[in-house]
Order: sequence, then C-alpha cells, then structure tokens
Amino acid sequence: MKGVGTHLVLELWGCSNLNDPEVVEQALRDVVDATDVTLLDLRVYPFSPQGVTGVAIVAESHIMIHTWPEHTYAAIDIFTCGQERDLTSAIEAVRTRFTPDRVQMMHIVRGILVE
Amino acid sequence: MKGVGTHLVLELWGCSNLNDPEVVEQALRDVVDATDVTLLDLRVYPFSPQGVTGVAIVAESHIMIHTWPEHTYAAIDIFTCGQERDLTSAIEAVRTRFTPDRVQMMHIVRGILVE
Repeated sequence: MKGVGTHLVLELWGCSNLNDPEVVEQALRDVVDATDVTLLDLRVYPFSPQGVTGVAIVAESHIMIHTWPEHTYAAIDIFTCGQERDLTSAIEAVRTRFTPDRVQMMHIVRGILVE
Repeated sequence: MKGVGTHLVLELWGCSNLNDPEVVEQALRDVVDATDVTLLDLRVYPFSPQGVTGVAIVAESHIMIHTWPEHTYAAIDIFTCGQERDLTSAIEAVRTRFTPDRVQMMHIVRGILVE
C-alpha cells in the first residue's frame, strides 16, 4: 500500500547501554547508515538521574530513541519517506547497540495516498 | 493499560500552512502548552522546494511534525510520558494551525509494563 512514509515503531526490552549518550548517538548513526538516508542534524539529550533521548533529523523524516534504564526499555521510531529502505539492517543495528532480550515492532504506513 | 508513554499518531489531510516554518513552530509550541510538558529544545527544518520538519524535544519525550504540501498532508507524532496529558487540546491545537479537512489518529501505549 502506497504512502508517503514508512514508520517503524520499535519496543526494546531487557536492554544494555541505555544510559550512555554515546551509544545512543552511535545507534542513530548506525540506523542512518543502514537505511541510507541523508543526515541533517543529530542531537542527544541526557537526563538526570537517568535516561537519554536522541534524535536524527534526516531528509527522509526522522529517527528517535528514548531510553528508560529503570525499565531496561527503549522506544525507537524510524520514520523514512521516499524509496524503500533496509529496515532489517536498521533493526539489527539497534539490537547490536542495546542487546535487548525482546523486541516488539509495528510497521505503520504513513500518509496513505488514495486516488 | 499502564505504559511508560503515550504516543499519539496523527494524520492530517487537506491542510493549509504546510510550507510555513513559523506555523510549524507555533503548532509545536501550542502542543507543548496544551499538554503542559517541559520544552527542552525546538527546531524547524524547511525543505526545498517544499515541506517542513519541526521537532520539539520535551522532558516527557517529543512532538514531531513533518509536512508534505504537495499532498496537503502532515504527519504528526505526540509522544509523552509520565502523567496523563490533555491530548484533546493538543489535537485541537494542530487542527487550528493547519485546518485539515480530515484527521486520522491512532493512540499507542508505549512501553507496556507487565509485572
């Protein structure tokens, strides 16, 4: 079904490295590389006492990571538009960085175009 | 059902003002106000020849707007954690700024905590 974008909603449980801003940044860069999108801006926001938000704004929409170390949980969104992307490699990239015990995911087609 | 966050996925069709970075910024600020979250950073990225991305990073996660003026379409995500927020007012805020003909929405509970 044709839409303007593909939005992958990822739920990662039993993760490591959730309080490390450098790992969050590297995960964002890995997803950018895996999906072959054009990076426009990348920012990471550490929280006190714990938790990190990281965002990559790309020409094709965005990648967002929020972490809750206290729940060993990360919420990750990978939203791309244009050509089809290698989402399997993107998922593998975040698995490598955060080593979750369990991953749940939902794939949403955004902006479905009806003639 | 208890989760760490609430993610509202909005699809707006038949919109106005989609190529105006100032309207996108104001919409983000209106949603921040409506949901009573703590703004940490707000950035707007205009695209050539058209389209705007705007993101508000808040202490309670994020608000993201992507616009496609060529389809009169905007993809908006409102992700908050912590206490319950006034999402009805948030939806009204984006409706006021973009005057869509049609709004579709999905409410995702992120990070469902199972004991």
